[in-house]
Amino acid sequence: MNIHSYHEVLTDDPDTEQARHIGRSVKRLEDPPLVQGQARFAGDVNFPHQLHMRVVRAQVAHGRIMAIDTEFARALPGVVAVWTGADVADVPPIPFRATTVKGLEPYCQPILAQERVRYVGEPVAAVFATDPYVAEDAADMVWPEIEPLPVVLDASAPVGEFAPGRSTEPTVIRKGYGDVDQAFAQAHAIVELDLSIGRHSGVPLECRGAIGRYDAARDVLEMYGGAKKTHWNRDEMAKMLGRAPSKFHVYEDHVGGGFGVRGEMYPEDVLVCLAAMRLRRPVKWIEDRRENLMATNHSRQQRHLVSAAVDRDGRILGIRNRFFHDNGGYVRTHGPRVADMSAGLLLGPYRVPAYEVHAHYRLTNKTPCGTYRSPGRYETTFVRERLMDAIAHEVGIDVLEVRRRNLIGPEEMPYPRPLDALGTDVVLDSGRYEELLDKTLERVGWREAKAGIARRKAAGEAAGIGLAMFVEKSGLGPSDGVRITVDTTGAVELVTGAASVGQGMETALAQICADGLGIDYRRIRVIHGRTDRMEFGNGAHASRVTVMSGSATQIAARKIRAKALDIGAEMLSARLDEVEMADGSVFLKADPEGRRIPLDEIARHVHAGSRTVGRREPGLSAEGWFYSDHMNYPYGIHVAQVAVDRGTGAVRVERYLVAYDVGRAVNPMLIDGQIVGGLAQGLGGALFEEFTYDESGQPLSTTFADYLMVTAHEMPASIDVMITEDAPSPLNPLGMKGAGEGGTNAVGAAVAAAVDDALDAPGFVTRLPIKPMAVHRYLSGKTPHAPDSP
Amino acid sequence: MNIHSYHEVLTDDPDTEQARHIGRSVKRLEDPPLVQGQARFAGDVNFPHQLHMRVVRAQVAHGRIMAIDTEFARALPGVVAVWTGADVADVPPIPFRATTVKGLEPYCQPILAQERVRYVGEPVAAVFATDPYVAEDAADMVWPEIEPLPVVLDASAPVGEFAPGRSTEPTVIRKGYGDVDQAFAQAHAIVELDLSIGRHSGVPLECRGAIGRYDAARDVLEMYGGAKKTHWNRDEMAKMLGRAPSKFHVYEDHVGGGFGVRGEMYPEDVLVCLAAMRLRRPVKWIEDRRENLMATNHSRQQRHLVSAAVDRDGRILGIRNRFFHDNGGYVRTHGPRVADMSAGLLLGPYRVPAYEVHAHYRLTNKTPCGTYRSPGRYETTFVRERLMDAIAHEVGIDVLEVRRRNLIGPEEMPYPRPLDALGTDVVLDSGRYEELLDKTLERVGWREAKAGIARRKAAGEAAGIGLAMFVEKSGLGPSDGVRITVDTTGAVELVTGAASVGQGMETALAQICADGLGIDYRRIRVIHGRTDRMEFGNGAHASRVTVMSGSATQIAARKIRAKALDIGAEMLSARLDEVEMADGSVFLKADPEGRRIPLDEIARHVHAGSRTVGRREPGLSAEGWFYSDHMNYPYGIHVAQVAVDRGTGAVRVERYLVAYDVGRAVNPMLIDGQIVGGLAQGLGGALFEEFTYDESGQPLSTTFADYLMVTAHEMPASIDVMITEDAPSPLNPLGMKGAGEGGTNAVGAAVAAAVDDALDAPGFVTRLPIKPMAVHRYLSGKTPHAPDSP
Repeated sequence: MNIHSYHEVLTDDPDTEQARHIGRSVKRLEDPPLVQGQARFAGDVNFPHQLHMRVVRAQVAHGRIMAIDTEFARALPGVVAVWTGADVADVPPIPFRATTVKGLEPYCQPILAQERVRYVGEPVAAVFATDPYVAEDAADMVWPEIEPLPVVLDASAPVGEFAPGRSTEPTVIRKGYGDVDQAFAQAHAIVELDLSIGRHSGVPLECRGAIGRYDAARDVLEMYGGAKKTHWNRDEMAKMLGRAPSKFHVYEDHVGGGFGVRGEMYPEDVLVCLAAMRLRRPVKWIEDRRENLMATNHSRQQRHLVSAAVDRDGRILGIRNRFFHDNGGYVRTHGPRVADMSAGLLLGPYRVPAYEVHAHYRLTNKTPCGTYRSPGRYETTFVRERLMDAIAHEVGIDVLEVRRRNLIGPEEMPYPRPLDALGTDVVLDSGRYEELLDKTLERVGWREAKAGIARRKAAGEAAGIGLAMFVEKSGLGPSDGVRITVDTTGAVELVTGAASVGQGMETALAQICADGLGIDYRRIRVIHGRTDRMEFGNGAHASRVTVMSGSATQIAARKIRAKALDIGAEMLSARLDEVEMADGSVFLKADPEGRRIPLDEIARHVHAGSRTVGRREPGLSAEGWFYSDHMNYPYGIHVAQVAVDRGTGAVRVERYLVAYDVGRAVNPMLIDGQIVGGLAQGLGGALFEEFTYDESGQPLSTTFADYLMVTAHEMPASIDVMITEDAPSPLNPLGMKGAGEGGTNAVGAAVAAAVDDALDAPGFVTRLPIKPMAVHRYLSGKTPHAPDSP
Repeated sequence: MNIHSYHEVLTDDPDTEQARHIGRSVKRLEDPPLVQGQARFAGDVNFPHQLHMRVVRAQVAHGRIMAIDTEFARALPGVVAVWTGADVADVPPIPFRATTVKGLEPYCQPILAQERVRYVGEPVAAVFATDPYVAEDAADMVWPEIEPLPVVLDASAPVGEFAPGRSTEPTVIRKGYGDVDQAFAQAHAIVELDLSIGRHSGVPLECRGAIGRYDAARDVLEMYGGAKKTHWNRDEMAKMLGRAPSKFHVYEDHVGGGFGVRGEMYPEDVLVCLAAMRLRRPVKWIEDRRENLMATNHSRQQRHLVSAAVDRDGRILGIRNRFFHDNGGYVRTHGPRVADMSAGLLLGPYRVPAYEVHAHYRLTNKTPCGTYRSPGRYETTFVRERLMDAIAHEVGIDVLEVRRRNLIGPEEMPYPRPLDALGTDVVLDSGRYEELLDKTLERVGWREAKAGIARRKAAGEAAGIGLAMFVEKSGLGPSDGVRITVDTTGAVELVTGAASVGQGMETALAQICADGLGIDYRRIRVIHGRTDRMEFGNGAHASRVTVMSGSATQIAARKIRAKALDIGAEMLSARLDEVEMADGSVFLKADPEGRRIPLDEIARHVHAGSRTVGRREPGLSAEGWFYSDHMNYPYGIHVAQVAVDRGTGAVRVERYLVAYDVGRAVNPMLIDGQIVGGLAQGLGGALFEEFTYDESGQPLSTTFADYLMVTAHEMPASIDVMITEDAPSPLNPLGMKGAGEGGTNAVGAAVAAAVDDALDAPGFVTRLPIKPMAVHRYLSGKTPHAPDSP
């Protein structure tokens, strides 16, 4: 594939002397250990005398545990312990993050199944042995006797009883505003769709892994292999295990991909920690791919019954959105967040006077679910943009024109919506949507592309082009902090509670810090994901790191600068207003060519052991905290051009453009990477990846032969990435918005539009992924649109 | 032995609500892992894939390295590398701590001998192998070809050339004040002594150990097994290895004794770190006892030519003190500190109008030296108190009376001396010396004891009693800090850069913190000796931890209290002046029985992830720093009662009293332990322990059969410890003075006086240790006093 990057702007930072780093595509600080083979993944973490854990998993989707025979396993030489649910009955189930939804606690997952199993792959027993192969052999000798019970696989089926006293619908989230009934009553036309998004998820290269270790000498529990939410996991696991969080350190190492799934708290994480405490030996667990595909969070599966009331010009009067969120067998750490975001963020960049949504949060006998890159947005962008295309078709106007008529204008910003998402009021902070549409059409050469498609169609080809607009969200609060310290050699350490999941956060934060101090960013080391180095942290999720931790970095760097000026003035025997700082040195304004005191010299001056420190708090250190009550909202446009193979029904994406306004691009190269990687994952959900189950709830996608990942071969031959900075966020000093999810968000929507176009069948695509069989069926005239099941 | 403790006072702290902990003998926080066998010493630290280092040591005391054949060693299976001096020639020698003495750099020790060896035991080569036994075998195959050179063994011999261009006397430290010539010219009598203290040292139960590990994934070098001076060692090793200190973490684990020697920076520490970097594998080194006795710092060896000018009443007019400090083969990390302290602190509790000291800092071909518990004071108390006894004898007055006449009175405090020690002006901060003498005589029953001795002598026994007075020093600045954090469960973490070397600092700091917060001290965990948790630290030396870090703890605890009150007031919707805090809870003054908000609730209120944190810096944390320009000066008295075996010359200490005024006893039990342990070590130097050498410089004390440690059997049958608080230090809020070295300080002096008394031979003891052979020779009439060499 060819990747073209178009970085429209490189704003000079008015706040720093030269903005040498912010806005520049400097090389990643993260890469040296990775490219030199020195990275440390969970699999690389070993301790002497460690045990290896293997999890015995449920083989039926729903059933009552009658007995678990562990005798043979225990007898195997090398096996140290075998635990079943009874051994961990005192450990509370895994909690979920704060939500206003009540009553979900009974649906949470225990670390080993208690009485019932609810999905194939659920941990039923854990074997601990001195060798991983012995552990695996022993696990095969544990055979749980499980009495099968009826399974629930369709989240949109009538509500039933999932277990005694437990409904298949733990909650319905309702949001909305305006008079929807009136909107529909007055409508010129009503467009109704039944749309489904397939069950798929983030599937990182590296499977999960966790190592628990109890340091009895210091009474400290340690977990290695953390990622994403190390502090939250520490706090919650500490509660589960009855420990003070300050006596539990979670350490993040390198991870081979995050994407929302890796680094959540899973039963296996708690098991290795508990076992390390109880067995007094380090305990290591590494997931295999089969486990990964049936035990790590799934995501995305939703069915939307959506309808729009429009006037004769195609302007939206109101939207009704009733959807069924298939959450799988248990409420996991996200709780109902994906359903909540789907409900609160569906409307995207459009003006919608009245809106009503009922999110049916449903349990099924499948793998439990969590967030996956662009959660709730990938799904709802597909729904909303399908709806926009359908409105255009219904009213008889162009797909671009219907969007233009409904887009919120820049003069309406900030645009409050009477909705909430993730506990914050939805206020679109800034956006120049139509301007980006114009730029996109120009960049893509829309008119010529359409003409080209027409020519190919005339020649018998099934080629098509489609466009989808979207609004992302990022910068979730409430707060983030960093601590910056300049050591006596001038090396700078930036400690953050944010996490690195491959996104380049070390580089981005170092860039912001470097410009704040006027030094080379390579002098800065970013320490992250070590809960003993920073009391609080929010990890990496919701595209918040660069926005929140980046803003905190700027605040802390400014404090360092102020301290350096103060101390430098003392060293130069000058008044504060007589000195300034540039290039990481303090000097007299009146004598810029004279003595310059660099940061290392200033740090030595205030070293605690020095005579010069005086009575001040020693060290050239500062903490910076940034707070936010609202998310901010980057936005973008995807354009897909596809060709459909009339023989096989296969869809090939020939060309792809992602236009994305991120307010302020700290490192455009990193954003390019994020967007292209995100596109690959979006394509997977659009065309290839799906977790399927047979009628008994047995998973059918437990290998890469069944679960089809996008490879370089499936990627578009030509990818165009256009980063713009037209609408800086007013919510942080640098105007940044998160950039990690915009490559994924609208892929399903854009590809669907393109396939419709290629088939000259408006509204054909009603479900993702668009599988060749469905297209082939349509081409053979067997079905009017893609069926609900593959 | 029976230990009697007499704690005269338990001051209530006027600054805290109840002083539940300060002054109380609460149990040690350190003990649970130790008594449960869960402690982690350097030997317990292991990493997968680690290498083991074995050091090849010089077998001659002085010589030129001609060649080192490493071929056979390299060929041994399992050997990964063999280094000689040439392999580490780029690494600078080990530095020493700041001193005003110039020109010592050329005398510092390289990590492997370069060109010459200067003592038996000097590291000449290092072998790295996959197995410790293989490493040892391989080390035996490395045979350095060394051409012997003449040795220097007597530090008081005429100055010579130690090596081309290097004198045996790197420096002479001169201090003094007053008109000494005039004092001696006007003297009624002049008393002259030639006194020697034998070479001995701290010999911890645990030999040294160090593990170097390079974490390539994070580009962080780690060293485990640090102790005492982790931060200084980190900073200086970082310089030697060309690393930023923030990329080098030194971790302290449990140590089986410190005593001044353990935890200094030695060649082996640098070697394991360098090897970890170069060989990219963890490298472990554990010292064996033979190495420990010839490679770890020695101490104490000094010869003093001292004279006093006195008037007819025995009042001192002036003192001349010329002494030779035997520093061994290299200047190590302390530089000339022991000589400096010996010069600056000899005068003790007495009024001395004129003083002149020449400290000859000499190199010899023996193991290099450093500090050992009560460095410079053990030596000079022996010298000064021998001198006082000699003055009494010369003038014909009682040994108590001569002291009374010369003691500085409480009305003269603070008493500045025109001297400096460790870079600080010597100002005795407080002391009621004669009052303590009276208390001691009463406690010991001096008159009855003397009468008893007289009766035993009349019966033919050689029994005697002796007394020695001393001034210790403690609380060296310039600063120390701690950071206290209350976590969301109310558990408190106190992070300090101080070190734990068995002295009970965790407990003492927790006590101070607990009273500051009004909570149980067992809720507090003290984190120490981890350079990644605290940017600065001064470790544990010079009896400074309780004074400096303890004062910092009080400051930090007060800040926490202030924050808690502020936040608590907000939570109670009250004004700050309406709330107060007791028992770790904030409540309304007007309603003490009403709602009480405990610290954990307050911590949760300001958790970074909470909505209630507002815009404040989150977390219930505070740093406290304490500064000091001057040391403070605890003081005490030792009384020894001995019996000499007329047949063998062996001295048995029957009864011992240590009276010690520490200003403020945070935990009297801990001080008892310090004093009794210190006494054992003092007795070793007085009677048993000595590193001896043959005429070629071969060490003769390389096993415990030759180097005689004090065991329970040698301890006095009755030990009396009297802790007083008569003279709180005005230099810190709690009035504390260090308590770790007072048990050692005066043992040589008191035992010498008692032996003189037992033999009815005033001035008999002129050197330590007092070996049976010397006593026996005297008893056989062969010698007038103890000879200079055993």
